[in-house]
Amino acid sequence: MTTDTLTTAAPLPTLTVFRELPPFAVGFARDMRVRWALEEAQRPYRIHLLDQDERDTLDYRARQPFGQMPVFEDSEVTLFESGAILHHIALDCPDLMPQDAAGRARTLAWMFAALNSFEQDVMGVIELGPNPADTQGTEQRQAALDKRLASIETWLTGRDYLLERFTVADILMAWELKLVETTGALERYPVLAAYYRRCGARPAHVKALADHRAVYEGSAAN
Amino acid sequence: MTTDTLTTAAPLPTLTVFRELPPFAVGFARDMRVRWALEEAQRPYRIHLLDQDERDTLDYRARQPFGQMPVFEDSEVTLFESGAILHHIALDCPDLMPQDAAGRARTLAWMFAALNSFEQDVMGVIELGPNPADTQGTEQRQAALDKRLASIETWLTGRDYLLERFTVADILMAWELKLVETTGALERYPVLAAYYRRCGARPAHVKALADHRAVYEGSAAN
Repeated sequence: MTTDTLTTAAPLPTLTVFRELPPFAVGFARDMRVRWALEEAQRPYRIHLLDQDERDTLDYRARQPFGQMPVFEDSEVTLFESGAILHHIALDCPDLMPQDAAGRARTLAWMFAALNSFEQDVMGVIELGPNPADTQGTEQRQAALDKRLASIETWLTGRDYLLERFTVADILMAWELKLVETTGALERYPVLAAYYRRCGARPAHVKALADHRAVYEGSAAN
Repeated sequence: MTTDTLTTAAPLPTLTVFRELPPFAVGFARDMRVRWALEEAQRPYRIHLLDQDERDTLDYRARQPFGQMPVFEDSEVTLFESGAILHHIALDCPDLMPQDAAGRARTLAWMFAALNSFEQDVMGVIELGPNPADTQGTEQRQAALDKRLASIETWLTGRDYLLERFTVADILMAWELKLVETTGALERYPVLAAYYRRCGARPAHVKALADHRAVYEGSAAN
């Protein structure tokens, strides 16, 4: 005798991403974080491409209050904010996060460290850039980022990953380091640079990046 | 017959904060977020004051890799990052977060919205400030913040809190809005301003702020 759970395939989770990205954002858009986590979890998903003129609709704003991307939907929840999406995917996935309360809490601490403490310093340098009219501010922002990078370099010395093993927090940290790499600063931190390459070489990342690029670089997947 | 759980009081959780703060940081330091959540949860705690020369010790860096504050310790875990601390406190506290999986995930989405998406735009204006040498950048940062404020104003229209009820995400959002208030921008958003006052009037916030100030303003608690 068959049961519903055997005969009815659960609908795949859906990741909504923008149909178009400016060239500089390809490889860096935040759906990359979610794609990578889903590949690590070996969880199939489908992509929904959102047109530019849908971003400000009431329907989309009800799911993504800022009109940004991605949005993740599965049988349990509709979610915005890639940090929350990654945590949701990791909650019942031992490959992405320890499954005890303390391990989960420590993973979330490093997720917030990447997205709150670290990303602000990264964006201070990336988004504002060197400003010839404001050399003092430019130097202060670079110094703040260097101080943060040195702290994480110290933390990772003798460690392969932020916790004792790979977690979803490493996805977020590696994503930030990809931005740092574009500034040339990463190579001054050999432990961080090795960690970044270790994360990036994971097959799940390689697959996620290829799938992401295929959407925006005119391949058959587009 | 008595049992250990009846006769032995559990040790109080400990919140480690800096012994000294510059005057501008009083009322704004991140321990305020945790104090407020603990008051909402009606969970007693003790304060440990950290001296300046302890911030870079190996022992403290093992608990707080950036040498910042606060650090939270209870019988289960030692945690840094106020976002993760609030989530940990809220996990088994129905007053701070819905206790079903979808409600928890939606709460975490708004926590990340406050600390990642929103805080970056807030800090872009607060930390960099108006720069006479860079009027274009100053205007761009204010425009980015206004766009974000308008999105949250729209979301909160017809709502008392970010979710259907008060959650720990409102603590984080209100903390960000306290920064926005210092720029004078908040009063241009009447829904947000009312929300900010609604959150701030909660007895748990009033108590937390008084306790925080008492440490730094030379009261008996110092």
